[in-house]
Amino acid sequence: MGLQRKKISVIGSGFTGATTALMIAQKELGDVVLVDIPNMEDPTKGKALDMAEAAPVQGFDAKIIGTSNYEDTKDSDLVIITAGIARKPGMSRDDLVNTNAKIMKAVAKDIVKYSPDTTIVVLTNPVDAMTYTVFKESGLPKERVIGQSGVLDTARFRTFVAEELNLSVKDVTGFVLGGHGDDMVPLIRYSYAGGIPLENLISKERLDEIVQRTRTGGGEIVNLLGNGSAYYAPAASLTVMAEAILKDQRRVLPAIAYLEGEYGYDDIYLGVPTILGGKGIEEIIELDLTAEEKAALDKSADSVKNVLGVLN
Amino acid sequence: MGLQRKKISVIGSGFTGATTALMIAQKELGDVVLVDIPNMEDPTKGKALDMAEAAPVQGFDAKIIGTSNYEDTKDSDLVIITAGIARKPGMSRDDLVNTNAKIMKAVAKDIVKYSPDTTIVVLTNPVDAMTYTVFKESGLPKERVIGQSGVLDTARFRTFVAEELNLSVKDVTGFVLGGHGDDMVPLIRYSYAGGIPLENLISKERLDEIVQRTRTGGGEIVNLLGNGSAYYAPAASLTVMAEAILKDQRRVLPAIAYLEGEYGYDDIYLGVPTILGGKGIEEIIELDLTAEEKAALDKSADSVKNVLGVLN
Amino acid sequence: MGLQRKKISVIGSGFTGATTALMIAQKELGDVVLVDIPNMEDPTKGKALDMAEAAPVQGFDAKIIGTSNYEDTKDSDLVIITAGIARKPGMSRDDLVNTNAKIMKAVAKDIVKYSPDTTIVVLTNPVDAMTYTVFKESGLPKERVIGQSGVLDTARFRTFVAEELNLSVKDVTGFVLGGHGDDMVPLIRYSYAGGIPLENLISKERLDEIVQRTRTGGGEIVNLLGNGSAYYAPAASLTVMAEAILKDQRRVLPAIAYLEGEYGYDDIYLGVPTILGGKGIEEIIELDLTAEEKAALDKSADSVKNVLGVLN
Amino acid sequence: MGLQRKKISVIGSGFTGATTALMIAQKELGDVVLVDIPNMEDPTKGKALDMAEAAPVQGFDAKIIGTSNYEDTKDSDLVIITAGIARKPGMSRDDLVNTNAKIMKAVAKDIVKYSPDTTIVVLTNPVDAMTYTVFKESGLPKERVIGQSGVLDTARFRTFVAEELNLSVKDVTGFVLGGHGDDMVPLIRYSYAGGIPLENLISKERLDEIVQRTRTGGGEIVNLLGNGSAYYAPAASLTVMAEAILKDQRRVLPAIAYLEGEYGYDDIYLGVPTILGGKGIEEIIELDLTAEEKAALDKSADSVKNVLGVLN
Repeated sequence: MGLQRKKISVIGSGFTGATTALMIAQKELGDVVLVDIPNMEDPTKGKALDMAEAAPVQGFDAKIIGTSNYEDTKDSDLVIITAGIARKPGMSRDDLVNTNAKIMKAVAKDIVKYSPDTTIVVLTNPVDAMTYTVFKESGLPKERVIGQSGVLDTARFRTFVAEELNLSVKDVTGFVLGGHGDDMVPLIRYSYAGGIPLENLISKERLDEIVQRTRTGGGEIVNLLGNGSAYYAPAASLTVMAEAILKDQRRVLPAIAYLEGEYGYDDIYLGVPTILGGKGIEEIIELDLTAEEKAALDKSADSVKNVLGVLN
Repeated sequence: MGLQRKKISVIGSGFTGATTALMIAQKELGDVVLVDIPNMEDPTKGKALDMAEAAPVQGFDAKIIGTSNYEDTKDSDLVIITAGIARKPGMSRDDLVNTNAKIMKAVAKDIVKYSPDTTIVVLTNPVDAMTYTVFKESGLPKERVIGQSGVLDTARFRTFVAEELNLSVKDVTGFVLGGHGDDMVPLIRYSYAGGIPLENLISKERLDEIVQRTRTGGGEIVNLLGNGSAYYAPAASLTVMAEAILKDQRRVLPAIAYLEGEYGYDDIYLGVPTILGGKGIEEIIELDLTAEEKAALDKSADSVKNVLGVLN
Repeated sequence: MGLQRKKISVIGSGFTGATTALMIAQKELGDVVLVDIPNMEDPTKGKALDMAEAAPVQGFDAKIIGTSNYEDTKDSDLVIITAGIARKPGMSRDDLVNTNAKIMKAVAKDIVKYSPDTTIVVLTNPVDAMTYTVFKESGLPKERVIGQSGVLDTARFRTFVAEELNLSVKDVTGFVLGGHGDDMVPLIRYSYAGGIPLENLISKERLDEIVQRTRTGGGEIVNLLGNGSAYYAPAASLTVMAEAILKDQRRVLPAIAYLEGEYGYDDIYLGVPTILGGKGIEEIIELDLTAEEKAALDKSADSVKNVLGVLN
Repeated sequence: MGLQRKKISVIGSGFTGATTALMIAQKELGDVVLVDIPNMEDPTKGKALDMAEAAPVQGFDAKIIGTSNYEDTKDSDLVIITAGIARKPGMSRDDLVNTNAKIMKAVAKDIVKYSPDTTIVVLTNPVDAMTYTVFKESGLPKERVIGQSGVLDTARFRTFVAEELNLSVKDVTGFVLGGHGDDMVPLIRYSYAGGIPLENLISKERLDEIVQRTRTGGGEIVNLLGNGSAYYAPAASLTVMAEAILKDQRRVLPAIAYLEGEYGYDDIYLGVPTILGGKGIEEIIELDLTAEEKAALDKSADSVKNVLGVLN
């Protein structure tokens, strides 16, 4: 049979899904199947073809196809879900949650039908609840259904800190727990520039501003774009998680993981530090939290539970 | 003063411009300034910020800013023009030409005001005429005003051939002369898979189909997308040209060059094989053409002249 | 069980073996086991450790270990053989052949004991005969025992041509058949710069000199080094073949393949154009040869047979 | 004149020098001149040619030449010094110091004769004293004469920690002050896995063992190799420093810097955290040290002064 390339399916061919597909192909992590609903099939094929035509120029080997047929995702090693709607003016948050949950259920079912042993990474918002939904519907083991938020949140934080200190982004790190956006629990004491705690390098006031800018980082882009939301950094974040899993790297990355007792929570998906490798979430790292941090994490967990409560 | 990064300005923050900015940053070719008109300033800043936030995750060091102020492009080592409108239903081709020529003139003036010694690569369609316009308006030497079309055309051709033969795109090459799209003059006898002439590997009928698909490759994507045109492969093509110039690679790449007698043409921009390096177009390679090829190139040149005749 | 990294064993920890191990790790093609004989175990471990310590700086994830125990090679996806002695002053060629053949037999047996389904790439000289020996001893199917010579020969040729024309090596290609070194059969008509046949760009006399320099390219390095032979370009050549196989790229690369009728030869390993992919040599490309080329290839084949005749 | 590649000269064509030359070329940081003494000219040319022949296969564009003529280093943007002898059995440390100091003086003079505005990175041991010697002899400003030790020391530390915790090396960081090897002052409290202080993840006893192994990391390789010393990780360390400077990255990296009051020392080269960018050492980061750390650093400084005292 010979050695074969890995296969990655990206569900949702919007800007984030398409950019993720390209980044995965550029890194030659495997062949990519970009999937969308039937009435988006042509644009999906168009994007896939455009990417495939970039391959000879950029020098990467990866098949990229667009489809609306889940049969094409058969035996995927990894599936990334970016499908879902964005909140529109006049739409209640509960409507958003239920609409996207419905999409997650359909997608999860289609995925496991053709790839019963795959690993899934979810981006769709509200991501904690959507990852939970995919977990329940897919029947996959918990370590193989994972949500993305912390990689993106720390990426934004790192960008702002690197700019503040005029340093390479390569040497700035950040650390977050909890939910995405407003519910983010930053652990500044675990955030560094060149290994030096940021608290030694930036005033508390300025750090608070940077944290606040990070919390609303998604909204900042939405406001600037006027029409649409961020996709470059989200796609990069999904790609680095995909790489960690596909190359079995055992990287320490924040991820939305299913908790069964960790940090004192149960039956909930929440952002925690994890070890990501070939088995998915190979470990959840439990840290001692200060009372303040634990309170913030509780709030974040409550917020996730509230969203879950909305689900029909 | 120390060693400094190169600076690249990308004019036009649409999908192609933005994707080009990202690819240039990913390759750490230098810092990137993404420029658009004032009423697009916010979305331009939004895209630039989103890209900058991808940098820590992907591990590249490059400043990326969005702006509508040409002062920010000061001392650019390279400028890439993607600005311009696409043809809309009901718009005559002449209207398109004149509108984009007006944009080229304004952009060219703004560029050289702040970067009088730069090199410019033009993508805007109709690209032969638009490159000519930028050349005339900028006052830059001919070797430093260059148009893109052949890298993209051959990329598409290579993709289709690699698919046909089920081979790595790395080992398939193509060769074109003349204008973009319909006016493209493919030199099949200079196109290979692993060094073997394609004519030995693919039937003439099938090759004709592939050439025809290449000619209409841009339209194929437009039709699939339904709304908009290709941007991944065009951006990759611009990036490889940028790299050849910024890294002084002396690559052999097809480019739209100003001809003064070469191939028997004068005072015209036309797609020819060139050597791209630190000085821009360092050489135009003149090939012996068959009568058939020369006739096709004449037709392509006529077509460019017709477009130039439209210019007010 | 989860997704796992590929495993590559490199037999022989001399400069070529060690450099190959590093290049494979740098490309994150998989984990690497560097193997040598027991009394070289410590230096082998030392080199592996030194490489592993380069990983955090260069940012690659790959385990690299040194060993003299073939058990550590268990379930290798690919094995590269660089082991063997170089010809020493006073040693007859026949002695060299028989000594290295003995080494090949021992190595082949040890490899398949622990990796019965692997693919093997052989570098040890005289490479055609040594690949044959490994094929016979290993019992592996012919498509999974492959010799390296043409990638290196064309690399040298491309370097000399790129220098001659002052062009990027990226745009120069070469094409060879037959054995390594003196027995190399260059196909100049299939060698190009930017797709343009070299015969159009370089005089016949100069091309002949370049071909001759290529033939003796290994000796040129040996003479310069004074003590030892080339290893950077050989390691790069092995790595690109490894990548083509491990990533199932279906690249068109020259390789030493087992012929059963192709080009009119039988039961012999000879350098021919192949398609390298996940199954090893997926295809041998047969070209129409001129009488002159066929004669040169015959001579090359005779030379291989002579060496095989020496084998006890 | 056009855009030009940067130029990097590497003095000393031993394994470290040669490997550094290759890594710089692979990253396309610029063209490379590998320099050694006249009676090593041929092997130096041989290594350079072998590397150049790897370029078409690995796809990098960089001229690499070997020479014994410093004229070839003219206008280097960066010079890396790896020249010098290793301590031989029976040789006193003082003899080693004086021999290498003599080499440094000659090399420094030759460098600035042809590149009066360059930046120099020194690897030769004992590196603190040798960097001091090059600084004094070259007459270059202090920020442009830099020694390497901390990048390598932390690389070893990171390797051992990543192995201990079975994590990606990408997510493990280390932090050292002071001299190389025995004089290394590790700041464990600034060393992390995924941002989590190592003290939370590894027992104090085990960490002490890892620190001790790091201190003697060079000797461990020497003992294993039996004949020679480490070169892969040293070359990678030099390359990352070169990249930070050549690409003006402002990275936070440990480096041997000239101190004028920083940390309470004067007129001495010592390992400290720095910001490396286009101007060389753009900043020295001063940290508050514990009494224990300060004492260790004092000891390290004394050790450097002792070596300097030996210099004739």
